[in-house]
Amino acid sequence: MNSFELYNPTKLVFGADKIGQLGELVTPYGKRILLVYGGGSIKSSGLYNDVLYQLEGIGAIVHELPGIEPNPRLATVNKGINICRAEKIDFILAVGGGSVIDAAKAIAAGALYDGDVWDFTVRQATIQEALPLGTVLTLAATGSEMNGNSVISNWETKQKRAMGSKLIYPKFSILDPKLTYTVPANQTVNGIVDIMSHVFEQYFSLTTDIPLQERFAESILLTVIENGEKALENGSDYDARANLLLAGTYALNGTLPNGVSTDWATHGIEHEVSAIYDIAHGAGLAIIFPNWMKHVYKERASKFVQYAVRVWGVDPNGKSDDEIALEGIEATRNYFTRIGAPATLGELGINDEQLDRMAEEATKYGPIGSFKMLSKEDVLSILTASL
Amino acid sequence: MNSFELYNPTKLVFGADKIGQLGELVTPYGKRILLVYGGGSIKSSGLYNDVLYQLEGIGAIVHELPGIEPNPRLATVNKGINICRAEKIDFILAVGGGSVIDAAKAIAAGALYDGDVWDFTVRQATIQEALPLGTVLTLAATGSEMNGNSVISNWETKQKRAMGSKLIYPKFSILDPKLTYTVPANQTVNGIVDIMSHVFEQYFSLTTDIPLQERFAESILLTVIENGEKALENGSDYDARANLLLAGTYALNGTLPNGVSTDWATHGIEHEVSAIYDIAHGAGLAIIFPNWMKHVYKERASKFVQYAVRVWGVDPNGKSDDEIALEGIEATRNYFTRIGAPATLGELGINDEQLDRMAEEATKYGPIGSFKMLSKEDVLSILTASL
Repeated sequence: MNSFELYNPTKLVFGADKIGQLGELVTPYGKRILLVYGGGSIKSSGLYNDVLYQLEGIGAIVHELPGIEPNPRLATVNKGINICRAEKIDFILAVGGGSVIDAAKAIAAGALYDGDVWDFTVRQATIQEALPLGTVLTLAATGSEMNGNSVISNWETKQKRAMGSKLIYPKFSILDPKLTYTVPANQTVNGIVDIMSHVFEQYFSLTTDIPLQERFAESILLTVIENGEKALENGSDYDARANLLLAGTYALNGTLPNGVSTDWATHGIEHEVSAIYDIAHGAGLAIIFPNWMKHVYKERASKFVQYAVRVWGVDPNGKSDDEIALEGIEATRNYFTRIGAPATLGELGINDEQLDRMAEEATKYGPIGSFKMLSKEDVLSILTASL
Repeated sequence: MNSFELYNPTKLVFGADKIGQLGELVTPYGKRILLVYGGGSIKSSGLYNDVLYQLEGIGAIVHELPGIEPNPRLATVNKGINICRAEKIDFILAVGGGSVIDAAKAIAAGALYDGDVWDFTVRQATIQEALPLGTVLTLAATGSEMNGNSVISNWETKQKRAMGSKLIYPKFSILDPKLTYTVPANQTVNGIVDIMSHVFEQYFSLTTDIPLQERFAESILLTVIENGEKALENGSDYDARANLLLAGTYALNGTLPNGVSTDWATHGIEHEVSAIYDIAHGAGLAIIFPNWMKHVYKERASKFVQYAVRVWGVDPNGKSDDEIALEGIEATRNYFTRIGAPATLGELGINDEQLDRMAEEATKYGPIGSFKMLSKEDVLSILTASL
């Protein structure tokens, strides 16, 4: 086990109808609120009205930034930063899924920074201060509701990059499983893949003697696999939605990487795909991850054997490690297909035209990953297998 | 799954030689430090000197409260409170195991309270403010390094009671597995039992549809069972000590009770035993827990079947639920015995003289527990089976 620090001050408020605590949760942070959200779904569901009712109840002055994109864009973030400055915003409230929360975090950091908020993603500056923010989560997927990370896209340069800081942890996040009842099936699927992918990035590691972190990761995978299918069968299954929501939070709230060398190459590759084609993050991950697995598993086949046996119940008797590992990878692909996720870039209308550029961009600061360090050629090979 | 709140702002600093960060970690909280510790072991190990070196490095004025007892006593806590008031202490640093940390928390709460700190344990007052505290942990067991609970004993009235508040979470805790190399075998054993018991209290629940919390609990148990034996074989096995330490923290840092009705009856019963006989908490739990299990398992045998199969690898084929459940309980007892924990009160020189008083005291505010509500007669029956 490596050394590590664990610190996560986000307060999670979890359960049915917890929106009723929103006013009280916002109160300590001031009255001038920027409300950030995406499309119209929070209006049609009634959540928008519930949020405004809560904010009016504490006499808040509410400014709005609607229209956050599924891959939130720098230009939209800058709009939010301008509102914060012009209106002396005290607190940012994100109501939505990962994209909305990520945009809110970037706005929170950018509002108190003199330069371009993009600087934080290209490591030309580190976040020194940020406005406080809170979230009302409407989708099981991101983990952003309980961490200090944000991913935004620069649509002009076709780049998708991450920033992170302890200063942009949400002060609170309200997680009401009922708010996810109306999530359409394809978004539920993308969420399932997203959660599982977050686990993969931290589970497939060369670090040894981390039994607790491994078992925690397997716990999340088993929970998501089972409850993902239940939520797809019946979108209003409270416990299935609750289990997915909690699993999504734990997949990326700092529980799994304790003392572990994590990978994140597949996310890097997917970011290049969705930066150019604006596809859903979960869809890109479903396509690429099993191909990444096949490309790297021999680096430490025993880890993939453990994965196959413990997560997919593969019977190891009479099989070689390679056979068991490949059976586990196959089970992953089969599960993704069974729940309706795409298996090839072709299904999304993506051909080989931009693969070289993506591979180049993904590795422009050097090889990526940790389980296996991937060169441009490795990335190209994984992308080609994904066509 | 029930509704819940999750909030844990303690910063964990985990790894070899992390004591080197102590000065920096204490700095934000002021210069006037109360150093709380137990017996002489931190002096013989050299840790005491390392701590003082760090505190001197930041120009701290250090007052000391040594001699915290294994079941920390109200009188000792009051000594600490008096020092805090007389010396205008800014920050309390606990160096030791759970007893030292629990004493430090009670001192932190009592120092800023006009009445008797015991009021907090008997719910005659709630903690409104507290001095900040930090910890350097030297024993894998308590979980107190990352939660807001404290258990202290009133030696005059023979009572052992808990207090809790978000205000007494440690600001930071340094966890260096190497600091636990010199823990004697019997204390390592007590720590193992303590950690497993913390999990049991939250795992054996009537709440349904909590697969993630159940698997997390099983993850901790499996990690402790395996690494406990390794640490006993070789006290200087870094990874075994690290895995135990991390498992101990996660067993009681708020990960397991999310949305779960927890039990804690066995802790209540054990507190009555150790309040009178001053035995080690882990020893008392090792004796009582399997007897509690046998007394209650029929309330929901399926949970004990799951425990037997997933944690102890009991083969369920051709057996009744009762048989499987009892085999899991037997495996628990056998493990405790194998690592050297006591199985009967008699081994500790305790006879039936005070059983009735203990059962009376344990249930004096009404039945205890949640998996099965225990009356005085239930408690007496469990204690009698433990003789």
